[in-house]
Amino acid sequence: MQNIIEPRVLKGFRDYLPEAEIERSALIETLTRVFRSYGFVPIDTPVLEYADILLGKGGGETDKQVYQFKDHGGRDVGMRFDLTVPFARFMAEHVEELYLPFRRYHIAKVWRGENTQRGRYREFMQCDFDIVGTDAATADADIVLLIHDALAALDIGSFTIHMNHRELFNRFVATLGAAERAPAVLWAVDRLDKIGREEVRILLSAEIGPENAGKVLEFIAPEADFESTLAKLERLAGGPGSDSARLREIWEAACAAGAVGKGTKGKLVLDPSITRGLDYYTGVVFETRLDAMPEIGSVCGGGRYDELASLYTKRRLPGVGAAIGLDRLLTALETLGRTKGRSSYTEVLILVVEDGFGVRYQEAAATFRRAGLCTEIFPEKKKLSAQFGYAEKKAIPYAFILGGDETARNVVIIRDLRTRENHELASIEAAITLIREKGGL
Amino acid sequence: MQNIIEPRVLKGFRDYLPEAEIERSALIETLTRVFRSYGFVPIDTPVLEYADILLGKGGGETDKQVYQFKDHGGRDVGMRFDLTVPFARFMAEHVEELYLPFRRYHIAKVWRGENTQRGRYREFMQCDFDIVGTDAATADADIVLLIHDALAALDIGSFTIHMNHRELFNRFVATLGAAERAPAVLWAVDRLDKIGREEVRILLSAEIGPENAGKVLEFIAPEADFESTLAKLERLAGGPGSDSARLREIWEAACAAGAVGKGTKGKLVLDPSITRGLDYYTGVVFETRLDAMPEIGSVCGGGRYDELASLYTKRRLPGVGAAIGLDRLLTALETLGRTKGRSSYTEVLILVVEDGFGVRYQEAAATFRRAGLCTEIFPEKKKLSAQFGYAEKKAIPYAFILGGDETARNVVIIRDLRTRENHELASIEAAITLIREKGGL
Repeated sequence: MQNIIEPRVLKGFRDYLPEAEIERSALIETLTRVFRSYGFVPIDTPVLEYADILLGKGGGETDKQVYQFKDHGGRDVGMRFDLTVPFARFMAEHVEELYLPFRRYHIAKVWRGENTQRGRYREFMQCDFDIVGTDAATADADIVLLIHDALAALDIGSFTIHMNHRELFNRFVATLGAAERAPAVLWAVDRLDKIGREEVRILLSAEIGPENAGKVLEFIAPEADFESTLAKLERLAGGPGSDSARLREIWEAACAAGAVGKGTKGKLVLDPSITRGLDYYTGVVFETRLDAMPEIGSVCGGGRYDELASLYTKRRLPGVGAAIGLDRLLTALETLGRTKGRSSYTEVLILVVEDGFGVRYQEAAATFRRAGLCTEIFPEKKKLSAQFGYAEKKAIPYAFILGGDETARNVVIIRDLRTRENHELASIEAAITLIREKGGL
Repeated sequence: MQNIIEPRVLKGFRDYLPEAEIERSALIETLTRVFRSYGFVPIDTPVLEYADILLGKGGGETDKQVYQFKDHGGRDVGMRFDLTVPFARFMAEHVEELYLPFRRYHIAKVWRGENTQRGRYREFMQCDFDIVGTDAATADADIVLLIHDALAALDIGSFTIHMNHRELFNRFVATLGAAERAPAVLWAVDRLDKIGREEVRILLSAEIGPENAGKVLEFIAPEADFESTLAKLERLAGGPGSDSARLREIWEAACAAGAVGKGTKGKLVLDPSITRGLDYYTGVVFETRLDAMPEIGSVCGGGRYDELASLYTKRRLPGVGAAIGLDRLLTALETLGRTKGRSSYTEVLILVVEDGFGVRYQEAAATFRRAGLCTEIFPEKKKLSAQFGYAEKKAIPYAFILGGDETARNVVIIRDLRTRENHELASIEAAITLIREKGGL
């Protein structure tokens, strides 16, 4: 007897069993439908890239987490750690074959050799969408609307999209005479959610003094509504500008498209405390929180940038985009009890109640499938309890029963496995009608 | 000015631009629908596995092609090179949490550091489906039917599923007194397609002598139909057996399900020359060829095996399954001119013909989307030729036009971009009706 290799997965990695994978597929299918409805197209890039492409300027925290190695040809390669870097490389390489503005979505796995103690996985899925090659406000608005429609399409309750503008923030910091301190101020404000207002005050005071710290805290506090918040920001930042005009355009577009206001699950708020880290973003920025679970942080964030691909091309590629945290959304759906809990797609299980009926069962299965019902035949005659047990594991709603007795009486039986009710019917067609009326999964 | 890193992908890897990715997505969506209609459930496994899991007994040709490296924790890891090994590990690990028979599909990327000279890619997608945990004929039949329905659902013309049984073949070889030569005989027969009948005769003669070689060539030649071929095989193999009974059961199931016979795109033939390599398969085996392109070889092959996971568990896990060659199918669709050639999903492009209409455009876009039409707004006012050029690149069928003139006359315009015909309509609702009537992409 040969030795058994212990079956196991690497730390930080996981298998998706059917229920989890069906849930993830459903989420991806919904998001895909919404992306397409906004004119976004899919692309794909290789999992492995040249290490110099992935690491770019290098030196970041992420670099150490990249799975890097030498391939069979001695090339330094790495597994992608996000979808932004490959997209930048892709745009630089293919812009002449494509067209601008280019709206793409990409839902794919990425890998980071992170410390798993914080409950993070080393393999996870990202979901990015961007509009590249335009500075227009419509593109900013489209990203906000898409975030809205995508989350509204999920059964995840109400949510709030927080929006801000980096330029407006920078103008305000300049009025304090602290323009060169803007990155540190941004960084401190970005921690508001995690450390709270008073800790931020301490950080800010150390940078720009207590009086200015107070002014920053006043600036980042939202007012009652969009208009009054925007008015305050314009006043504190030295007057209206293209930045505040841009925020107003996005707001008006969202109102026009029905993405804010009564009857929607989504709120859009102007939130001057949203800064989204330090470097990349240059215009509007967004974060999105679930109203029932603010503690999990942003489930969809992004913003406008001036240069997508300056590492790989001299061509200017401004754009706007966001990323949805699929794993966070799945966790949230689970915590909120909103998962479908679907174990399979099967709607009809054909029970094997008598030998010699194989051909009849195949005919029945083919008829059900042609009617659009997902159908399987239990593979062999076993005790009914075993066959029902299987149906229960897969949460199959209906069983089809046909044996000698039914044949003699010229009927077929549909059993509703949820109510344990039997329905005697004259034909498979009548069975299909019944199932359609009663509803499936 | 910083240096530019040349944007490029690794040899043997490729980007999928929108048209190619849309084609691949359409193929995957169709296959997924068919898998689900047969009660199959999706699973997913990590891209990285422990090297000892991936390499198993080791020593095969594939081993050298596996992308292997040490991870951050010094573990020997590798990227999966197929979906069978991870599935075997998955079943061994999770069989107690699951149920048997377990029907799963898995469509995912795999990696092999192969020589790219033969036009092969180092990253490609596999599509596997298996029924594990049963010896039943119904499971064999389901795999044949699924191959049939999957290929019939694609716009790929007629095809032929070739079926054989390894046991029947082995019984026949035993009648020649050459049982111990069976692997070499199988190997020679397996090369029939590539080297032709006479070269196979030479190989066989060297193994088992010219007289037996002649008998093997007689055995592997199909007769006019299923029954006469099966009758010959039974006669030459020493009489009927459970193997020939199994082939007949599969045949009858396929007839009952309407997968053979008039009106179907698929033929099922008993082809005793099909052997599917050497080790793994123990029962029925299949290959599938496109009638218009036999030269590309099998687009879907598989068979029955006794032990899925004997490397990882002592539990016996027999099963039957097959794999669809997605890349071959995509190449075939392209060669046959059957690709959709779809550059996007967008059905309506809202042209920006006048400033100050942003809110009206957003309202229109939201209305179109609510009606299920994929819609985008061109992001800014540019020359109409530029906007039409963009629509052409994305193969968008309809443009929506609304400016001051239309507003004054209380109309909207839908332009059919394929016929260049303008339709003047009283409302967006009328525009939606028109587009639905004329048809979209």
